[in-house]
Amino acid sequence: MQRLPLPTPLLSLPQLFLLLALLSTNVNARGTGDLGIVIERATGSVQVIETSNNTTLGRIEGLGDLSHASAVYSRDGQYAYVFGREGGLTKIDILNKKLVKRIIQSGNSIGGAISQDGRLVAVSNYKPGGVKIFDADTLTLVADIPASYGNDGLLSKVIGLVDAPGQKFVFSLWDAGEIWIADLSNLKTDNTGGNTSKPRITKFKGIGKNPYDALITPDGRHYIVGLFGEDGMALLDLWNLDAGVKRILDGYGKGEKKLPVFKMPHLEGWAIAGNFAFMPAIGRHEVLVVNTLDWTEAGRIKVHGQPIFVMARPDGRHIWVNFAVPNNDTLQIIDTQSLKIIKTLTPGKGVLHMEFEPRGEEIWVSIRDEDRLAVFDTETFKQLITFDAKKPSGIFLTSRAHRIGL
Amino acid sequence: MQRLPLPTPLLSLPQLFLLLALLSTNVNARGTGDLGIVIERATGSVQVIETSNNTTLGRIEGLGDLSHASAVYSRDGQYAYVFGREGGLTKIDILNKKLVKRIIQSGNSIGGAISQDGRLVAVSNYKPGGVKIFDADTLTLVADIPASYGNDGLLSKVIGLVDAPGQKFVFSLWDAGEIWIADLSNLKTDNTGGNTSKPRITKFKGIGKNPYDALITPDGRHYIVGLFGEDGMALLDLWNLDAGVKRILDGYGKGEKKLPVFKMPHLEGWAIAGNFAFMPAIGRHEVLVVNTLDWTEAGRIKVHGQPIFVMARPDGRHIWVNFAVPNNDTLQIIDTQSLKIIKTLTPGKGVLHMEFEPRGEEIWVSIRDEDRLAVFDTETFKQLITFDAKKPSGIFLTSRAHRIGL
Repeated sequence: MQRLPLPTPLLSLPQLFLLLALLSTNVNARGTGDLGIVIERATGSVQVIETSNNTTLGRIEGLGDLSHASAVYSRDGQYAYVFGREGGLTKIDILNKKLVKRIIQSGNSIGGAISQDGRLVAVSNYKPGGVKIFDADTLTLVADIPASYGNDGLLSKVIGLVDAPGQKFVFSLWDAGEIWIADLSNLKTDNTGGNTSKPRITKFKGIGKNPYDALITPDGRHYIVGLFGEDGMALLDLWNLDAGVKRILDGYGKGEKKLPVFKMPHLEGWAIAGNFAFMPAIGRHEVLVVNTLDWTEAGRIKVHGQPIFVMARPDGRHIWVNFAVPNNDTLQIIDTQSLKIIKTLTPGKGVLHMEFEPRGEEIWVSIRDEDRLAVFDTETFKQLITFDAKKPSGIFLTSRAHRIGL
Repeated sequence: MQRLPLPTPLLSLPQLFLLLALLSTNVNARGTGDLGIVIERATGSVQVIETSNNTTLGRIEGLGDLSHASAVYSRDGQYAYVFGREGGLTKIDILNKKLVKRIIQSGNSIGGAISQDGRLVAVSNYKPGGVKIFDADTLTLVADIPASYGNDGLLSKVIGLVDAPGQKFVFSLWDAGEIWIADLSNLKTDNTGGNTSKPRITKFKGIGKNPYDALITPDGRHYIVGLFGEDGMALLDLWNLDAGVKRILDGYGKGEKKLPVFKMPHLEGWAIAGNFAFMPAIGRHEVLVVNTLDWTEAGRIKVHGQPIFVMARPDGRHIWVNFAVPNNDTLQIIDTQSLKIIKTLTPGKGVLHMEFEPRGEEIWVSIRDEDRLAVFDTETFKQLITFDAKKPSGIFLTSRAHRIGL
């Protein structure tokens, strides 16, 4: 048998170790179910966190203007799509902690959503007003929905964009007072072919003046829009479109029209526990209790300040509330059986956002003005750990990937 | 400057390529949010699947007797804990597709659960009757709860084990007619110290004869037990333990006492949609509709056979039902608004289990007697794909890691 000559050696022992070390730093094989990101608004970065041992795993930079940013996740939990205020859409790989792709898709954006099947990312824009829909893999534009209204070719600012079952997106037009449903289910099946398929749009007009934010129930059935120009909210039952849009909670917030917009609460931070929904009562030091069986007001709970986020612990037993300035150093916890405040915490200055771990045992809190995050035990209310973050705001855990409307 | 001698080369170019190839095959860095396992009962194996492109990723073998097996997930989604019928508890790494550890923890086991914080795995046993609790990392026994009852030192078979918020497990004693709550929250904080802390057990006696299976509501509040020896069910409100156990649905299942146990439906496969819960009516060709506001019967829906699993699509709009022999080739879909059957499918012989993808767009179905899996679109009811599996039964997706009581 012919013996082959020994091949030329290429690597020395130190070089081999270096290569192995380099390779192993690129090996981030681990589950993604306990990961999350924290928006660092001042520096255009996100911090990657994990909730099993409550540690930080690193930082991804270069995401642009992240004031008022939000994020959604790919269905496998490896990628986050971050929506920045200046129209930036950035796809990041949180497992390998790197920026995958970044585009500026409009001049001024307000938020986004990911489709039920995870293949489409939608962004709602102020300028130019409309919704753009991108392929989640490549960030290629696959559909453009200008929010045109009236007869003068005007474009409306779009707010309250959410995903809904059946490969739909639902959103509202601030200037036009309309709710639109975009059905992308034909795009889903046609994605091997050309660009002939277009979203099917269903429009509901005259829903009320200046819808400013919206929410969808956890089952994806009821879409509820806050109206800045009226004293009530608009409700669309996505299971009964023929019934049209109904006005609910008329007179629930008398007087708040004079309040500046920057104090508006986030409706998407609402909470459902049993048959009660809990919402921030705009401008008042109150949390509104709503009966979800008939969408009437069931009560109000006096709280420490103007509520911003009103969030239910995943088991629905407690509601956690944060507040607008000058009360934004405080968190209050409401018991959903007694409807009483059972605890008041003062985590620190600038409590901007909270996120429960998926089964609710702990909650993460952003304390912007103190440049730190804190994690609390939701049973004992004790702070478990705190660590540095650069002006942290929104906190988003990967478990959102599996929820409708988040 | 002194020049160091060139270090001795160790690797040739082909060797380097081989090394790189080997390393890259071990690199399974990907998100785990879209992964799952399918129990292959005849071969003691599980197949690892992913739901983004609906493919199989591999197989893990050596799990023993997997008839009537179930599984739970670590909070990061990388590990599954599989409970086998012969008392086997196996921890598998689904990312790297390997068996991590396997123990035989009893002589005859029926199911398990994982604690809210993911640190404890509990197994309910027939022989010897009781619950054993293991460290999720190491599978070391951390607590043993014999199900002793009466004055004669008897041990009861344990059924209906679920996790509940507050680091609790809830389960029932078949022979004793009792519900027990085990509170493990002290174990959680004491785990740096010794083994002095014990679970705090709360017992509810005289709940009815022969509890045979149980369920917990998705919020972790209501624990409901089916009673084989009585014509009704037992309800425990975990938010109001002082109220004790209540009997509900008296007379709901007259006549089924004579049915053999092997036809019993799985109560954990029930469904909640809006204010209705849907349960298999034992022994009858009916799905029971229950009003969750007062836990009274709200109606019955005639179906094709004896229902086994009655599962709600995540948006609650549809209920999918499979059946006992001789009707186990069929699936029926019920609309939760009209309470009518809107579709009947015949996927094949031996439809044992179904699992919805977390946002509900597709459903995975095990067709045991045809040795295959099938995936259906839940909107069009079309079969999207089918592929081989060895006598598939239970299907478990990683999104369960983030749910209470699953």
